[in-house]
Amino acid sequence: MFKLVPIHQNISVTFQYQIQFTNNVFNLKNPTLAQVITEDGEKKPKKVVAVVDAELLEYFPRLLKELVAYTQFYAEILTLPVEPMIVPAGEAAKNDPKLVDQIHQLIDTGRLCRHSYILAVGGGAVLDLVGYAAATAHRGIRLVRIPTTVLAQNDSGVGVKNGINAFGKKNFLGTFAPPYAVINDSAFLTTLSDRDWRSGIAEAVKVSLIKDANFFDFIHKNTAALVRREMDIMQQLIHFCAQLHLEHIANSGDPFEMGSSRPLDFGHWAAHKLEHLTDYSLRHGEAVAIGIALDTTYSYLIGLLSRSQWQTILNTLSALGFSLYVPELAEQSSQLEHPRCLFRGLTEFQEHLGGELTITLLQGIGSKIEVHEVDLSLYRQAISLLREFIEKSQTLLTAS
Amino acid sequence: MFKLVPIHQNISVTFQYQIQFTNNVFNLKNPTLAQVITEDGEKKPKKVVAVVDAELLEYFPRLLKELVAYTQFYAEILTLPVEPMIVPAGEAAKNDPKLVDQIHQLIDTGRLCRHSYILAVGGGAVLDLVGYAAATAHRGIRLVRIPTTVLAQNDSGVGVKNGINAFGKKNFLGTFAPPYAVINDSAFLTTLSDRDWRSGIAEAVKVSLIKDANFFDFIHKNTAALVRREMDIMQQLIHFCAQLHLEHIANSGDPFEMGSSRPLDFGHWAAHKLEHLTDYSLRHGEAVAIGIALDTTYSYLIGLLSRSQWQTILNTLSALGFSLYVPELAEQSSQLEHPRCLFRGLTEFQEHLGGELTITLLQGIGSKIEVHEVDLSLYRQAISLLREFIEKSQTLLTAS
Repeated sequence: MFKLVPIHQNISVTFQYQIQFTNNVFNLKNPTLAQVITEDGEKKPKKVVAVVDAELLEYFPRLLKELVAYTQFYAEILTLPVEPMIVPAGEAAKNDPKLVDQIHQLIDTGRLCRHSYILAVGGGAVLDLVGYAAATAHRGIRLVRIPTTVLAQNDSGVGVKNGINAFGKKNFLGTFAPPYAVINDSAFLTTLSDRDWRSGIAEAVKVSLIKDANFFDFIHKNTAALVRREMDIMQQLIHFCAQLHLEHIANSGDPFEMGSSRPLDFGHWAAHKLEHLTDYSLRHGEAVAIGIALDTTYSYLIGLLSRSQWQTILNTLSALGFSLYVPELAEQSSQLEHPRCLFRGLTEFQEHLGGELTITLLQGIGSKIEVHEVDLSLYRQAISLLREFIEKSQTLLTAS
Repeated sequence: MFKLVPIHQNISVTFQYQIQFTNNVFNLKNPTLAQVITEDGEKKPKKVVAVVDAELLEYFPRLLKELVAYTQFYAEILTLPVEPMIVPAGEAAKNDPKLVDQIHQLIDTGRLCRHSYILAVGGGAVLDLVGYAAATAHRGIRLVRIPTTVLAQNDSGVGVKNGINAFGKKNFLGTFAPPYAVINDSAFLTTLSDRDWRSGIAEAVKVSLIKDANFFDFIHKNTAALVRREMDIMQQLIHFCAQLHLEHIANSGDPFEMGSSRPLDFGHWAAHKLEHLTDYSLRHGEAVAIGIALDTTYSYLIGLLSRSQWQTILNTLSALGFSLYVPELAEQSSQLEHPRCLFRGLTEFQEHLGGELTITLLQGIGSKIEVHEVDLSLYRQAISLLREFIEKSQTLLTAS
């Protein structure tokens, strides 16, 4: 038989989206959302389905009414074919697969098409859930994210991922699917607890440490203002952080991480494991702060960072109010495969991302380096050092 | 408060994959599959999970053993951490959401990562199911499709879509996700029923009519050879058709159909509806042949095609053995919203693709035109004309 030549296919797909910054997105005088939808240039009105974070409604009990009023006011641009759906806040949103089915049902009931919109209003977990449901209905309904936490506004909510948990594994199910638009509304940040306000700053510290010394300097100089909850400073931090995050995605050469490209995951191997070991009593950002402190200390111990750089980083995190030690750090079995061994986090991290083990370390403030092997005895030493550092600062605190 | 400038994000994602043509893919002497996996340039062996079409196993009862033997022979390149999974053939694969869960479970049990592989062996429906499960686990496990029907080898199996049915709607759930590689194995075509052999040709006729008069000419001249099941001619047809299909995806400027770009869906609005109205007793390709005949006849009636072009197309389809009329074409309610009205297929088609109604017609052999309005009375006339054409050719057949 004759031989047919192979066909080599090469596809390039372009995704464009905007991150808008506003205040009171559902105020009738605020045209941002209506403008975002107007700009698609297609026949109006467009169908919009909304999914809202339950916890948010505790602080903004009139939110659903405002949302409905908004769609009525801008009825020529957008219509709401079905009532908004309310979903649980936090990790609970990602642990119940029925919620995905229910959002799909909503999309079906509203008879949405691929040119329709889903509005996701809430924290990062809710955005992840809704993003996953949106990406898989009709091969992708347009997603407008309205992140309501610092973490979601500067990090998870501006990126290209979604996901839910399955088989006890974080983000086991998910896709890479850029949003249609993101609208960051500062009004939602005013009601955050101090813990949530602070947690979101951890990802900003992370990105500054691996990407941009000036940004770290900005955070370092403004720790007091951030603790005082000065909104202007927080807004600048969010804008700076989102921009660095977006540049990383756009310039990585591999935004969907199909090859060896890495997400911005400094400090994250331990963070993921600590969240799990503490039964999620740690917020993601709190766990990331500890993960950053740990990998910074390890970087110092192997000679990549100076003592003063190491201290500056740890002091900045402390000044922001982060606790940099939890007892779960000490859960180190001699059997690395033990499910509760901290270091099992290294293999779990590798498994989720695929390919060989790659851990990001610092070789200076604003400069990262990737390693493919780690020395566990030095990591154990880093954990001890971290505990000493904390005990010393607590002593200082008590003494002062 | 100061105003933050919006951030405009622009991401470009490149996907590359190859379509290999081979014979007896699991023969130990056939290095194609092992080579495809070797070429990722990553540390070996790679984990591979296989999902196989149940119907295929009826004709190739030793397939699973051969697959296992193949992985043992090439153990330095690929390993099979879990037994292959068998899934129902045809539309049944896409109608049971539990199958998606089971494939996810298999991926979890095998501890696959994003750099691992899923092998999907089967017809288009099985590939669609496995592709959907692969695309949503760890945000995308690498998919190697081994299509086993003409239709899957020249059309659905080489493209960028996957999907399952939900809420009674075809492909309600799915994503755009290019495969890692496609291996077309001609050995699988030898056991196809005549119906399945023929069905796959319908998409080739479709793509030739809207894209390439030379290709239509090739089919037209080779109808007898195709009916005689000459494999060399079929292989050329598959290669030609796959190439045109892939070029369309790569050059459309919008391969994931986010905007107004259209898939190659000539004849498909009626085809989808007829499949549904006949309770899927029509094969997809058989329904497409009728859809092509209908939209060709309509194109002739509105003056886009000459009488001889119209006859050539219908005669070619008939010579291939397609029946171009089913009683369900006559199911036309005066209420267009009636679920069993053929013309409801127009709005359902629009809803699935999004945006305004767009129907592809012919303005010559090898040349398409898109219209956004149709004349239903002319469509009714086209259906009558089609019935007359068929009755006449049956009379001729009986007389001869």
